[in-house]
Amino acid sequence: MAPILLNCFGGDQTDYIKQPVQVKNPYLDTMEEDILYHFSLSTKSHNLPEMFGDIKFVCVGGSANRMKAFAQFMHQELKQPGNPEDVKDICEGTDRYCMYKVGPVLSISHGMGVPSISIMLHELIKLLHHAQCRDVVLFRLGTSGGVGLAPGTVVITEKAVDYSFKPKFEQVVLGKVITRSTELDEDVAQELLQCSAELPNLPTVIGNTMCTHDFYEGQGRLDGALCSFSAEEKLEYLRKAYDAGVRNIEMESSVFAAMARVCGLKAAVICVTLLNRFEGDQITSSHEVLVEYQQRPQALVSHFIKKRLELV
Amino acid sequence: MAPILLNCFGGDQTDYIKQPVQVKNPYLDTMEEDILYHFSLSTKSHNLPEMFGDIKFVCVGGSANRMKAFAQFMHQELKQPGNPEDVKDICEGTDRYCMYKVGPVLSISHGMGVPSISIMLHELIKLLHHAQCRDVVLFRLGTSGGVGLAPGTVVITEKAVDYSFKPKFEQVVLGKVITRSTELDEDVAQELLQCSAELPNLPTVIGNTMCTHDFYEGQGRLDGALCSFSAEEKLEYLRKAYDAGVRNIEMESSVFAAMARVCGLKAAVICVTLLNRFEGDQITSSHEVLVEYQQRPQALVSHFIKKRLELV
Repeated sequence: MAPILLNCFGGDQTDYIKQPVQVKNPYLDTMEEDILYHFSLSTKSHNLPEMFGDIKFVCVGGSANRMKAFAQFMHQELKQPGNPEDVKDICEGTDRYCMYKVGPVLSISHGMGVPSISIMLHELIKLLHHAQCRDVVLFRLGTSGGVGLAPGTVVITEKAVDYSFKPKFEQVVLGKVITRSTELDEDVAQELLQCSAELPNLPTVIGNTMCTHDFYEGQGRLDGALCSFSAEEKLEYLRKAYDAGVRNIEMESSVFAAMARVCGLKAAVICVTLLNRFEGDQITSSHEVLVEYQQRPQALVSHFIKKRLELV
Repeated sequence: MAPILLNCFGGDQTDYIKQPVQVKNPYLDTMEEDILYHFSLSTKSHNLPEMFGDIKFVCVGGSANRMKAFAQFMHQELKQPGNPEDVKDICEGTDRYCMYKVGPVLSISHGMGVPSISIMLHELIKLLHHAQCRDVVLFRLGTSGGVGLAPGTVVITEKAVDYSFKPKFEQVVLGKVITRSTELDEDVAQELLQCSAELPNLPTVIGNTMCTHDFYEGQGRLDGALCSFSAEEKLEYLRKAYDAGVRNIEMESSVFAAMARVCGLKAAVICVTLLNRFEGDQITSSHEVLVEYQQRPQALVSHFIKKRLELV
């Protein structure tokens, strides 16, 4: 088989509506069995079309507890039969990720950082492909550090940018670095912004999100085990980020945007800010305040889903 | 305060024996409180010297379940009082990581990938510093893909190398890329190899470990959602890795080695191989076989610890 050119998966990025989820791997359909190892699922041991064929909304987030809580919340919001407490982890055979299905909504945890969410996204996209899902919208619901925003503000990502504020993601493929675009779907972002205006207590902006590969030095924190810069140098970097349109900083959006784009999935990143990084580095709000902040992206995405399903 | 030069934390790397754990951050001791957010611990709410001051061995691994099982195993191995089943998660206030203490041994999970383990290492090194620990040895016990080795072989890492087989880790600090060395402690590696020879059924080698930032394209797998290369190109890359001394591939060793080195911690990476990547990409061994493989690094590190404590 001839190799496909690196960083050139072809396909028209505009015609994905009503399309199945596009894996970009010619080998996949020749495999007798596909083991989704980190989900503890497989095409042989599980009937993926039956289990997942009706999925229309996939919501992912870092924390396993939070994605379970989101599934229970959606259970109530979509008035599903049975007890929300009884939602069952589909990936119970592994502790790498957890996964819950509530009607057309799939809720999955992805851990922290680009590599962790990248493994999940590969197996998720294969799962949606094997299950023959169509017209899926993908959301990342997360927490982040705010840049010049009051804590509790929700940021809908326009572009995921790297440490130099460029909308690109660098992926190593067989020892070569290739670059992928990280622009997200404009229409979904605008639809989410409209949803936020319809809900109380949901201060929301659209802005760029800086995706870093660590929480301390890469984000200019003064409170890590290692810190080799001054408080003034930190503030200067944050000011440059702000001037480049960055409104929050987290650790997964770049590969999320890049992979969704390559596979023709409409996708959005919705993160609440837990602090304003111009004011400090440590997350000092009370547990109760942080819990309420973390429910904001959930409330926003729930409203979006209910509107799409014509339930509101 | 004058900024410290990037990538130049100073200090003599040879004089760390009998030394406290070295944080490299002048701001840390000026903070009134240090919240170790992802551990749900703090210098104000917890007496860290009392809780952790006697720690001599820190063992980290990706999976929460596996690190709990390791704590229970060490409870038996060190003949601790009480029931191994009752080991308690010290980080129960969060689901980011789990942490168990068994005598002088701390067992912590770190999730998957460099960013995830990096957050944990920053907070662990701060914890050991606040707790005034001395002479700590740090181990990563993991799973990996083997390169030219029979599945089940344990690899003790000589150097953690990047995708181009160089023993370096690139860290972004305030938008600038700096490079850190990833060589691990030779004496600890040799001591571990000696331990392996004293145990049955523990095929063990010392070799280089390639640390990648994803599981699929970066490791040359043909079974991801994205694959733009041929089977022959994959094998060529693996052959080059083998020729550069790489014997296994995982996703955390580079930052682990780099941070341990900067902070003067003696450290080792011990990973079992779950498959031989020259033979395939999917992990097809039975659950029972994989469980037995995963116990091998645990048995090896337990023997090391018991010898150091003069219990064997």
